[in-house]
Amino acid sequence: MSIDEKETAPIGVFDSGVGGLTVVREIARQLPGENIVYFGDTARVPYGSKSKDNIIRFSKQIIRFLQTKNVKAIVIACNTASALALDDVRDTFDLPIIGVVVPGARAAVEATINHHVGVVGTDATVRSKVYTTNITDMNPEISVVEKACPLFVPLVEEGFKDHPVIEEIIDYYLRPLRESEIDTMILGCTHYPLIRSKIREYMGEEIQIVNPAYETAMDLKKILKRLHMENPQSEQGYCEFYVSDAADKFKQFANSVMPYDISSTKVINIEEF
Amino acid sequence: MSIDEKETAPIGVFDSGVGGLTVVREIARQLPGENIVYFGDTARVPYGSKSKDNIIRFSKQIIRFLQTKNVKAIVIACNTASALALDDVRDTFDLPIIGVVVPGARAAVEATINHHVGVVGTDATVRSKVYTTNITDMNPEISVVEKACPLFVPLVEEGFKDHPVIEEIIDYYLRPLRESEIDTMILGCTHYPLIRSKIREYMGEEIQIVNPAYETAMDLKKILKRLHMENPQSEQGYCEFYVSDAADKFKQFANSVMPYDISSTKVINIEEF
Repeated sequence: MSIDEKETAPIGVFDSGVGGLTVVREIARQLPGENIVYFGDTARVPYGSKSKDNIIRFSKQIIRFLQTKNVKAIVIACNTASALALDDVRDTFDLPIIGVVVPGARAAVEATINHHVGVVGTDATVRSKVYTTNITDMNPEISVVEKACPLFVPLVEEGFKDHPVIEEIIDYYLRPLRESEIDTMILGCTHYPLIRSKIREYMGEEIQIVNPAYETAMDLKKILKRLHMENPQSEQGYCEFYVSDAADKFKQFANSVMPYDISSTKVINIEEF
Repeated sequence: MSIDEKETAPIGVFDSGVGGLTVVREIARQLPGENIVYFGDTARVPYGSKSKDNIIRFSKQIIRFLQTKNVKAIVIACNTASALALDDVRDTFDLPIIGVVVPGARAAVEATINHHVGVVGTDATVRSKVYTTNITDMNPEISVVEKACPLFVPLVEEGFKDHPVIEEIIDYYLRPLRESEIDTMILGCTHYPLIRSKIREYMGEEIQIVNPAYETAMDLKKILKRLHMENPQSEQGYCEFYVSDAADKFKQFANSVMPYDISSTKVINIEEF
């Protein structure tokens, strides 16, 4: 690609399913001129229970697919894949690739005053301790407490984000964090920003809530600027959606997350890439 | 195997994960002398979003694995695999294989008086319409209403079966069924018997609740008797557990379902079979 083609080329964003749409939403907000090609691996979701080897294999297939769309950079909008595959795919592919974990961890390190950080995420993310590792690598004085909230994802996906039970489940999972010393909390799963206001209400105004989707979009902006790859167009960029299974359900969910309606979603066979 | 060896050989039972344990529990209750080898495909759960070709491939791998344990019969303790793979694996393997759908459908056909039957299950099972097809094949006069309750599985797996939110979620999903004419309801997912008493309480005593796990164990009993393959031992049979991933979580859940503690669970690589 020439420099000019690189500027107008789309950003490739992928996730195990629909959660990564919260990252797309942030990119569309903060980098409105950028075009986006999104891939949701709905046939193989969830990644949480899969082995590292498989997550790396899946991620490479997806990046090869996104390359057929001439993407200029990749955002891994999935905590599990960011945690397990980022180093490997960076070694394999010659284009900028960023994940959600490092931007989220760095934002929390910068935000905490009392050096107590909480992380909420899926079972797999919490078990991997990837946020704790990243945070303590950046500042060993910070103590991190991680808490898995496995029901948040199905509740959000089933449309319960405004139903009263969500408050009871939040109380069930987050009470230990509310009673702890933390002053900063990372939403370590791409679904959780969709119940951010409920979490904020429960945890109180004094807790800083870090949304890695926001931080990741900010990082992407900096990288594109540094590499002179920003899209100069003034109108809102396009957004194309691909999934590996069940496009209808994806589209329905996407329309509840994105600020505009999604016109079409294509199903592709990701195993071919 | 000789006839004598066939009598003492174990029953192979499999599911995409832990739900099939409710079927194991029923078999252990009704056929206490039988030995059981259980396989839970925890690395590839859930089956609901996978293609038919994959479900058949997975089921064949599992049956080949169970054959290495010299099983005399197979119970597919998973609604999705019963719906999508039963015919294929029956053509492939030369041993008795039964699923959970037909016994459940037949019990509902026999139970309904007003010819209105409700079915609750996962998204995949409800989308497949497998219960409606089986019931109307048996009696075309019966009208069937199916309702997906996707949150029941994660709620049960996360240990919420006695938490007050389960009642609110039951009300959310089952209100249309309670307000309908149905007199019979099939629990079309192997997890749902674990919240049977809450469902019973909500739906009222006048509704007949069909648990396919119970009906499947009854069918197995009849088939073993007919083939002269019943285990004559008087003590409780043994039960061996195998999974494809994360044995600890399985064991923890199994101990909450089974009437006795599970001593050990082995992880195997199912892709090798």
